[in-house]
Parts: sequence; structure tokens; C-alpha cells
Amino acid sequence: MKFGVVARRDKLEALKLAYRVYDFLKVSGFDVVVDEDTYKYLKEFNKEDVLPLEEFDVDIIVVIGGDGTILRVEHKTKKEIPILGINMGTLGFLTEVEPHETFFALSRVIEGDYHIDERIKLRTFLDGENRVPDALNEVAILTGIPGKIIHLKYYIDGGLADEVRSDGLIISTPTGSTGYAMSAGGPFVDPRLDVVVIAPLAPIALSSRPMVVPSSSRIDVRNVAMTREVILSIDGQFYTYLSPEIEITIVRSPRKTKFVRFSREIYPKYTMKIKSRF
Amino acid sequence: MKFGVVARRDKLEALKLAYRVYDFLKVSGFDVVVDEDTYKYLKEFNKEDVLPLEEFDVDIIVVIGGDGTILRVEHKTKKEIPILGINMGTLGFLTEVEPHETFFALSRVIEGDYHIDERIKLRTFLDGENRVPDALNEVAILTGIPGKIIHLKYYIDGGLADEVRSDGLIISTPTGSTGYAMSAGGPFVDPRLDVVVIAPLAPIALSSRPMVVPSSSRIDVRNVAMTREVILSIDGQFYTYLSPEIEITIVRSPRKTKFVRFSREIYPKYTMKIKSRF
Amino acid sequence: MKFGVVARRDKLEALKLAYRVYDFLKVSGFDVVVDEDTYKYLKEFNKEDVLPLEEFDVDIIVVIGGDGTILRVEHKTKKEIPILGINMGTLGFLTEVEPHETFFALSRVIEGDYHIDERIKLRTFLDGENRVPDALNEVAILTGIPGKIIHLKYYIDGGLADEVRSDGLIISTPTGSTGYAMSAGGPFVDPRLDVVVIAPLAPIALSSRPMVVPSSSRIDVRNVAMTREVILSIDGQFYTYLSPEIEITIVRSPRKTKFVRFSREIYPKYTMKIKSRF
Amino acid sequence: MKFGVVARRDKLEALKLAYRVYDFLKVSGFDVVVDEDTYKYLKEFNKEDVLPLEEFDVDIIVVIGGDGTILRVEHKTKKEIPILGINMGTLGFLTEVEPHETFFALSRVIEGDYHIDERIKLRTFLDGENRVPDALNEVAILTGIPGKIIHLKYYIDGGLADEVRSDGLIISTPTGSTGYAMSAGGPFVDPRLDVVVIAPLAPIALSSRPMVVPSSSRIDVRNVAMTREVILSIDGQFYTYLSPEIEITIVRSPRKTKFVRFSREIYPKYTMKIKSRF
Repeated sequence: MKFGVVARRDKLEALKLAYRVYDFLKVSGFDVVVDEDTYKYLKEFNKEDVLPLEEFDVDIIVVIGGDGTILRVEHKTKKEIPILGINMGTLGFLTEVEPHETFFALSRVIEGDYHIDERIKLRTFLDGENRVPDALNEVAILTGIPGKIIHLKYYIDGGLADEVRSDGLIISTPTGSTGYAMSAGGPFVDPRLDVVVIAPLAPIALSSRPMVVPSSSRIDVRNVAMTREVILSIDGQFYTYLSPEIEITIVRSPRKTKFVRFSREIYPKYTMKIKSRF
Repeated sequence: MKFGVVARRDKLEALKLAYRVYDFLKVSGFDVVVDEDTYKYLKEFNKEDVLPLEEFDVDIIVVIGGDGTILRVEHKTKKEIPILGINMGTLGFLTEVEPHETFFALSRVIEGDYHIDERIKLRTFLDGENRVPDALNEVAILTGIPGKIIHLKYYIDGGLADEVRSDGLIISTPTGSTGYAMSAGGPFVDPRLDVVVIAPLAPIALSSRPMVVPSSSRIDVRNVAMTREVILSIDGQFYTYLSPEIEITIVRSPRKTKFVRFSREIYPKYTMKIKSRF
Repeated sequence: MKFGVVARRDKLEALKLAYRVYDFLKVSGFDVVVDEDTYKYLKEFNKEDVLPLEEFDVDIIVVIGGDGTILRVEHKTKKEIPILGINMGTLGFLTEVEPHETFFALSRVIEGDYHIDERIKLRTFLDGENRVPDALNEVAILTGIPGKIIHLKYYIDGGLADEVRSDGLIISTPTGSTGYAMSAGGPFVDPRLDVVVIAPLAPIALSSRPMVVPSSSRIDVRNVAMTREVILSIDGQFYTYLSPEIEITIVRSPRKTKFVRFSREIYPKYTMKIKSRF
Repeated sequence: MKFGVVARRDKLEALKLAYRVYDFLKVSGFDVVVDEDTYKYLKEFNKEDVLPLEEFDVDIIVVIGGDGTILRVEHKTKKEIPILGINMGTLGFLTEVEPHETFFALSRVIEGDYHIDERIKLRTFLDGENRVPDALNEVAILTGIPGKIIHLKYYIDGGLADEVRSDGLIISTPTGSTGYAMSAGGPFVDPRLDVVVIAPLAPIALSSRPMVVPSSSRIDVRNVAMTREVILSIDGQFYTYLSPEIEITIVRSPRKTKFVRFSREIYPKYTMKIKSRF
């Protein structure tokens, strides 16, 4: 079994725990690679084990950080490698264990005592081309000038679903339903479901409601006002400006994100974390 | 082919159109039965064609009225008979055609030029027994004293999902998502989805959010405060008081509701009707 | 100085603290009367000091309980007597001190080291007659059949403000803004403001928004559907059925509720309690 | 009596009506000045009557356009000049008459048959200095990177009111309550009230609710995360980046906006316009 190790870079505690994980796995006889960015912030790793995330080809990646670190790993790795998330963030909807459980969790992984939780992702096509990362949480089409509304129409499988003048439109996976989509008024969605949430952000029309549609739907979004100031944001990590006449299409990605899990519990595990949004 | 005819009883226009439908189908050579309640309000039907809804055993029921009339038919008929709804109500999320399209629609039915749209229903067990009707829209567990909150816990597949002090809890099908659940803040749900919406009604805790869960889930609701004043309402049609210690379990029904449809269009058909909620 | 003592009846701890307050004030040489209902649940008070709340004529009433107990005192007493609330409830938006501060608070009252916080109340006229109590929190006009919407129009100073089909309509003081009105989606209102919040409860029309209007407004509510099943609830304490054609008018009451306060702090005192609604 | 004339520049119809108003007033013997920007788009006005808005010193300004045009006039003029708004926009919460009523309205103004509706404005101090325009609608403190939350604390009269991680914070007048604040979930506020609405925009914490506070309050906002990417937007017209440690203070302005009105009607005039937000 081959491991990868990644830590959030702005927290010394996370970097140090990453080193202990790396050391433990090496001592236990496993091949371990370390993310280049993590190495930049903590030079104690062996230089020959350092690789850019894009080149990771391992069985499991141990990620020490918050949801942001996991999203970064997801966006950069090329293969569907299972992630074991150790929570050094705030909420930790994606991470599986707390720091004090790290070595117990690694032992269970080594013994094969875990399962894989697969989550759907969204793929975005701009004028028919997919040149942006897949979204694990959400694709957000946002005003480029904060406070200036944009005017969008969106279609489900070719039928007009709604026309909104708003700060933006959020198209979210079940995984992302506890994130930006919830701030915009969307529901909690059971992560087992194969659905997509579409939630307008601060719409002018009070009748514009969040929608839940099949993940097999083709979602087309059009910029009605043809303004230049529209931004595409993927998981709050990747940003690009959109030309006004661009055709945006969002579908379920053929790729999934895989998480190492020790329990199949959903309730109250995820719903209690919503409470900690307070 | 055998037909049933039902009309809303408080609208003479609906009763008269029901008679015209009855007459047209009889003249065209079909067997037609008429709902006993409809007959009570318009005596022109042949008395020998009159039957209680509970005894209807036909191929298609033509319902002239609003969503309330369709829900009444659904609750009373014993078999899964396809319904053709002619809209004489306000919003008409369930009905398929407007009154002026009635005879064109009947011709298409006679020619077999239609399809069946199946919708899931919810079945409620009280202390393990199913003695209430299935819900096409929603099961609502409500305070029996308006303005006095009740205190509930609910579980998804055995795991605690949330604890709410509120005016009630609404468990809705996708069909019901545009009804009471939406008034309680729930999302629009694509009718093709096999999911259930759970929405607290005016909860004290601002963190209690609507949830979307698989329709294969077992949803258990418990009355924490053990107050006697809790009501179960099915589709706003059937009401019963609940004893405080009763165990409420809600699952997908083995039965479905079948609608005669002439188009497979969902968008903008249903989403535009949300706008007419204004 | 003359004191009254009242406790919530369902909590032995509250009753016992009430006795200690009573004893302390008697020993300190003050006249003290005890609420008849409190006495029914704890017989240790001197019977000659027991009086119904309606006959209380004292300088300050010490209330040991939650907001519900304070509302009961408010509804029954005839005079505008300042209330010192000792929190033995859940949230305690109206109470001023916690149980362990009781005797310190009484000492400050005896020394005159406090101020009076006056809160506006709402008066309801039914067909021009005021025969129901004033509301410190809210007047709620509610469906008498849970789950069945009512159809109301309401007018501000004679102009139509909105027409709603909903579970009800809540007309709230700033004091009540953290209560039922907030569950219905209303804002937090600074208690110093002379305004009224009007919030529809689970309205069908998604465009029906909470409103904030001057407390000097005359608010008229009319039952459009003329259904018999409409209930008036005052502070969740007083209930009456309303005949369909009744004319409901709500104005600011000439009476105010007076609270003993030791600090003029509003922020974060009240806004943090909203968080504890979770 | 001296008049000013301003039109929205992107609508020929508005420019043409502005010329007819100008001509009518000149022929009627009044002094009339025309906004320099309006003149740039329609050269028919006499050049000697053209002035920048900043130099307008007239009795009444006739504005032909939507709310955006009125906000532009408000931001540029130096004096509190009453505005007569002729609606050539979408919603027109600020405008008073429709185009076909223009000359009837001007006659009433000339005869003195109108009243002045004064609206409060908000003044913003940055590190104690007021170098930005007053807001007639709202002051918005927004993330400079769409989709990236900012972390703010805000204080009312020195007391912490709330701490929010959100897309922004909107501080609105009653006039602005039907604008951006409403998209963020705020209530409708009667324009006669002397209050301010504070509404977080897409907050992470579901417990962060809109607040209504006295307009005499001092509202202080602090950037907790000390990020550089925070924007101040006034009425969606004026924008500036804020340095991370800047102290933002918002109070009621000593200036008011004055509108020419022919009726004192508020209901249903304003509440029906909310419905047209759909």
C-alpha cells in the first residue's frame, strides 16, 4: 500500500502532525509521498519523497486540514484516490477523524477495516469545452461586481427552470449542500442521494426558490444581460471570468470523490454539524 | 375501456362539465361510473351508474376540480387507477388540462395517445399499524393547539436527524414539495426524484433546516414533550389526534399515484406554477 | 415598599426560591403578597398573605419562572406594576437575573438602584370592543384547523397592506420579535423602538414578507374566506374563536409593561439569546 | 420657481420626455437647467442651460428614469433639492408618477399642490472621516472576491450585536428595505419609520438574523479576518476598497432626501411593488 500526505500550510500543528503521519507510515514500511506545497512549509520530510499533487499515484491520501485542504487535493490530483481527512479546520464536513484519532485511524486503514464513501461531482462545460476542475461542493456563477446583480436564465434538460436577477446562482452536489448552497437558503441533502441543488443567491424575485433536480440532468445557464462581469467559481477554489455570451453547461462528472470512512453513519453526524454553523 | 367521473361538489361549472364528460363517454360507447358524492350535487346522471369512490374499478378516472378533489379521489379509491385531472381549482399542480381542452384530452385518451406519470406516496404507521391513508402530498405532524409549539425528535434510518420545537413537522413527497412543505421553506423537488422532504414548520431553532432524504429511508418521529395535543394530517384531507407516546413511522408506500399525461415536460410547467403562488 | 411574589407552578425549585424570596422580604420588614396559584402548589406561605393576581396592588412583583410565567402575571394583574423576573425558564428574554443573583438583585431593588424598562403592548378590538387581554409579545390570528390555511387581508391605517393565504398572521411588539414572529421569519427588533412587526405564518404566497410599521398604526385584519375556524391567540396564553365576519383591529395599548432592570444593555444581551434558540 | 431636468441616458424615450418637460417649463416661463450628462446624450437642449449636477441650485429636480437615476442625482447634488421622479425604470420604488402623468404632475407642482416626503439617509465614516456619499438605500460591506466569505463584527451603540461570516453585511434605510436588504431576507419597513435594517448577506451562521435598530444608533463594523478584500458599496452606485484595519461607522445623516409626492398613500402603494419583484 502506498500513501500520500498533505497538510494545510497555514497551521504549524497540521504540518507537524503530517510529519508524524509520514514518519509512522515510513517506519511501518510503506511508501509515502509528500505534497510539494506541504514540504515548502515544513522542510523535515525527505526531499526524495516530495511530489506535486498532480503526480500523486498512491492508494490513499492522508489530508490533515479542513475542507479547504481536501478541496485543494481534489482539484489537483489526476486520479480518483481515496482521501482520509483529519480535521484541523473549523467545521469539517468532509474530514473523517479528529487529530487525536489519527494513528488509530491509520491502523484501521492498514488492516483494511474501512469502506469507501463515493461522492458525486459536477463537471462544467464552457461553450462545450471542459477546461475547469470538477466541483465536489458547488459551481457558483457570481456577479463579478459585488452588489451588482446579474441576470441569468437556467434550463433543466432543455426546459426553462427559472429566470433570476440575483448576486449569483449556486449549483451544488449533496456534499456541497451544507456549504454555500445552504447560506443561500438551500436544504440539507442526504449525501447518498444522486441529486443536484440549484439555489439563487440573494435573488430580487422572492419567488425564486432552491430546486432539487436529478444529477443526471443537464443544467444550462445563460447570461441574459450579456454583462462582462460574471465569474465562475468552483468550490471557492478556482475562479475564472466568463465572457457574456458563453454557454455554461453543468452535468454530473464521470469522476467521483472517494473518502475513507469508518462508519456509515449519516444521522446525526452531518446534521449536527449544521448546528455548529452557528 | 371503463371510465369513472368525479367533480368538485362546490362548483356548479365543474359539476356541469362532469355531466358533459359522462354524456360524451356514454355516447361514445364506454362504460362510465359516477362518484356518489358528485351525484348528490347534480342529479342528472343515471342512478344506475352511481357508485361510491371506494368501489370504483375502472381504467381511468376523469376528475374535474382542483388538487383537493384529486387528493379526495386518491384517498378513497382502493386501486391504483390512472387519473386525468381537469383543472377547476386555483393552482392545479396535479391536474393536466384546462377545461376547454377536456374533449381533446378525452379523444387522446381513447386513442391511447398518452403516458402514465407515476408518483410516490408516503405510508404512515402508528405503533406499527397502518390505519391511515397514504399521502400523495405530505404527512404533517402538527400542534393541536394553534400557536403552542410541540417538541419532536425525528430519526432517519434509526439515526437522530434533528430535534425540533415548532408548530409541526412536514414530511413531503416531491409532488407535495410545491405545497405545504414549500410554505414551510422547503425546496422545489423535481417530481421524477425518489426522495422525501422533511421541513419543520415555524421552528424555534433557527438552525432547523429542511432536509432531503432518500424515499427508501425509514423516518421515525417521536413526541418528546408527551403532550396530548398533536395532530396527524394527511394531505390536508385526513386528520387524527395522536396519543403522546405513539410511535410514528413514515416510509414510501408500495402504492403509487398514476396520472394521465400528454407531455413529459417538467420545466417550466411546474416551476412556473410556483410563481402563480403569488 | 410592598412586594408581590409569583412562581411557575410546575417547578419545585421555582416554588422553593419563591418562598425564600417571600421569607427574606418579610424578615426585612416589607409587606409581601403571594399569588393564589403559587400558594396552591406550595402551602408554606402564610395564608393571610395570599391573594389572586387580579387583586395585586404592590410596588414590585418578583416573578420566578420563564417568559410564560411573566406573561401570565401581565395578563392577570390590573395595574402597571414593575416586574422583576428571575429566570427559571428556558430562554428568558423577559427575565432580568439568574437564580443565584436573586438576593443581590432584591438588595439593589430595596436600595432603589435600578431603572424601569417600559415595553409597549398591543390592544385588540373585536367589532370595536376590547374584551381580550393586551399582548406583550404578539397577537396571533391563526387557523383553527392545523394545516388548513385561512385567507386574510390586512390594512395599515386603512390602506391594504397585503392579502395572505397562510396558517395565520402574527402581529408582534418589539418584545415579541424574538418569539413567534421570529419563527415566522420576522427580524429582531430593538426593544427601544416604537414599532410593530407583522409576519405571515407559512404563507402560500412566497412574496408575503414580514413588515415593520409604526406602533401608532391602526392594523385591521379581515377574514376573507369567512371560515369559522379562525382563532385569536394573545401571547400564547389567551385563546378565543373568532366569528367569520368579525372586524379585528389592533393598536398600541395605552398600557405598558414595566420591567425592573439593572443595566441598560441591549447588545449583546438580547441578540446572544437569539443564538440560544438553537 | 427654478427647475432642474435629468434623464437616464440609456433610454431614448426618457431623453425625449426630458426634452418635452424642459420645453414645457421654459415656455411656461420658468428657469430650467439641464444635467450635463443628459445633454451629452440629447443635444437639443440650449447649451446655456446645461450644468453639472454638482452645481444644481434649483427648487425642484424632475428626474425621468428609474431608481438608479434618482440615486445618481442624490449622490451628485450638493443641496437637499426635492425630486419629482417620473418612472422610466423597472420597479420604481422612488419615482412618483408614470410617464403619461408627467404634465399633470408638473401642473400640480406649479400650483403648489404637493407635499414633500423626507427620507433619512445613512452617513459612513471611515476611520472617523466621511469621504463617501450618503446612502439613500443602503451601505453594503461586501466581499471583494465573490464567493469568499468575509468575517465581520458589528456593534450597536458600542455593544456587540453579532459576528458574521458571510458574503457581506447590508445596512439599509427604510427606503432601501425593498432593495438589497430584502434580497438578503430583510423585512419591508414603513418609510415613515426612523429605523435602520441590518441584514447579513448569505451568512454561514443560520442564526444570524436581520435586525431593526433605531436610526439614532451608532453602528460600528469591524473586519475580524483583516482580509484586504472588502468593498464598501453605497446604493450600488459608489464603490471603494477598504483597508483591513479600517474602522467603519454608520450613523443617520444630517441630510435627508426630499421627494415631491401627490399622495400620502403608503399601503398598498409600496407593498404591491414588492409583489412586482417577481
